[in-house]
Amino acid sequence: MRIAIDAMGGDFAPKEIVLGCLHAAKDYQDTHFMLYGHEDEIRQFFQDQDLDNIEIIHTTAKVESNDDPVRAVRRKKDASMVMAAQAVKDGQADALFSCGNTGALVASGLLVIGRINQIDRPALMTTLPSFSGQAQASDILDLGANADAKPINVLQHALMASIYAEDIRGIEKPTVGLLNIGTEENKGNDLMKKSYDLLAKDPNLNFYGNIEARDLLNGVVDIIVADGFTGNAVLKTMEGTALTLVSAIKDTILQGNLKTKVGGWMIKDALKTMAKQVDYNQVGGALLIGVQAPVMKSHGSSKAEVVHYCLTNCRNILKANMVSHLIERFSDDINPI
Amino acid sequence: MRIAIDAMGGDFAPKEIVLGCLHAAKDYQDTHFMLYGHEDEIRQFFQDQDLDNIEIIHTTAKVESNDDPVRAVRRKKDASMVMAAQAVKDGQADALFSCGNTGALVASGLLVIGRINQIDRPALMTTLPSFSGQAQASDILDLGANADAKPINVLQHALMASIYAEDIRGIEKPTVGLLNIGTEENKGNDLMKKSYDLLAKDPNLNFYGNIEARDLLNGVVDIIVADGFTGNAVLKTMEGTALTLVSAIKDTILQGNLKTKVGGWMIKDALKTMAKQVDYNQVGGALLIGVQAPVMKSHGSSKAEVVHYCLTNCRNILKANMVSHLIERFSDDINPI
Repeated sequence: MRIAIDAMGGDFAPKEIVLGCLHAAKDYQDTHFMLYGHEDEIRQFFQDQDLDNIEIIHTTAKVESNDDPVRAVRRKKDASMVMAAQAVKDGQADALFSCGNTGALVASGLLVIGRINQIDRPALMTTLPSFSGQAQASDILDLGANADAKPINVLQHALMASIYAEDIRGIEKPTVGLLNIGTEENKGNDLMKKSYDLLAKDPNLNFYGNIEARDLLNGVVDIIVADGFTGNAVLKTMEGTALTLVSAIKDTILQGNLKTKVGGWMIKDALKTMAKQVDYNQVGGALLIGVQAPVMKSHGSSKAEVVHYCLTNCRNILKANMVSHLIERFSDDINPI
Repeated sequence: MRIAIDAMGGDFAPKEIVLGCLHAAKDYQDTHFMLYGHEDEIRQFFQDQDLDNIEIIHTTAKVESNDDPVRAVRRKKDASMVMAAQAVKDGQADALFSCGNTGALVASGLLVIGRINQIDRPALMTTLPSFSGQAQASDILDLGANADAKPINVLQHALMASIYAEDIRGIEKPTVGLLNIGTEENKGNDLMKKSYDLLAKDPNLNFYGNIEARDLLNGVVDIIVADGFTGNAVLKTMEGTALTLVSAIKDTILQGNLKTKVGGWMIKDALKTMAKQVDYNQVGGALLIGVQAPVMKSHGSSKAEVVHYCLTNCRNILKANMVSHLIERFSDDINPI
């Protein structure tokens, strides 16, 4: 198994990418890690370590966070991200990982690596933690790979996520909920009503019905499927609300009386642990599902620990042959399912 | 000024509705409060109070929370909500307030009270608190009165909210942001791209551009305009995330060591104050804007304090003649703006 890594993407690149990768290379001797980026900048973080299963492919350009995604992928052929994607396309690597420009990574997946036959639109998927007792976490997709979804896209996303949940999370017949603005069958906009009908009649899905956004963190279903616009909006709302609340708690404590201040100091560690659990950036990575190889994205602010976590995920997906299963399931021209 | 109140709608009706109304009646001698509901059930909360500006209109039926909205409004002519709406239509009252079935209240506004000429779709609007220093709160609409929006609806909502912000909040040239999944001009789905173009070229709007959902609570703009599906989804996400976090903090403290437990007890009051500020249900009320009279909705779980707050809001809207201003601005057949 060979993972191509864009060492230059992200706010703390290449340092945190390289450190996370070194850690993963030590843990996983069966996996080959290919770091695409500036050799000198990368090598300085190696110190005296010399691992057989890590390789640097020197590149001189990079995709910037404000680059136009499609143009960057088409024109910056020598950028670390694009070269890493090309290595996957050419069969020199099996998976792609980057903390860089999300749009450009989606474009690299689509334009360089290529879609799976019969999948009209790949989707970005991540895992939400559950705070509701023993309930499992939920995978949620699409997070915005595709802003204008059609019902057939929503169905394909639900089917792909079901295969992922079976292969990677070991869940038999994972439940699928449709993110909607009401739980009743006839609720929502035209897209959601039509998507509901498609999901409900597909025998390959364990369809739960509609779920509302207030239940996103309650682990009601194994998979939450949303159109890319709404999925992106609710994820950012969650992020904003969590950050706002945590900073409001800090302010409340700082501006409080002595009792509040002392109390705040006493629960500081406990709050930190919780904040980490809530911050989905720490949970690690979004998968571009529907392309010919695993393409994993992590937040621009990712540190080494998250990089290590994402590389572990990539390796799990490769070990499970998840993408081959997707290709098989969608290979029949007449009945894609 | 006469406000028709559905005394039977909401989880704590009629008690909390009546108590909030009695409080408002004492505060606002210039306003007449008309309580629609079961007379005996209402009067028991009056005790020895006898106020000149409060009146009970006896009704025997009510709209249930699980009633189909349109059917309820069409068939339950003797329900407290529908009779209160009819009083507004007939000129016996000037505004409508309810904590009952949201869909039925929207339908009452549309089917009984009626749209403002040239407004294709009324919208539900509420105010989000801001936690970012000195920044003002933001009004947000549509929260789901209309699940399938067209660009013209988004524009009309932005124009109506601007008049509201001028009249009620005293903001000159309020800034309007479009809720989108990226800040750049060309971002989003087809609906948002077309809405952006309409908003950008309208000389009556102070258009800020796109804003992202992670900034909803930062008071970046005075008005946030969204399509009803997304607006509803992000509001419920905010609610769910806030509730989840608050309960996660509680669990963290309860399951913590002695230090954490003592600390938690010490900051309890401060956290309660904050939780109240965050909970948008407490902030009070959503306005159905675009119908011929102010129609105000509050959450089913509203207590007397929130009812009082909403009735104050209704009175402010009546005092400012806001609906007349909307009607004037949209009265010209040739150029509605």
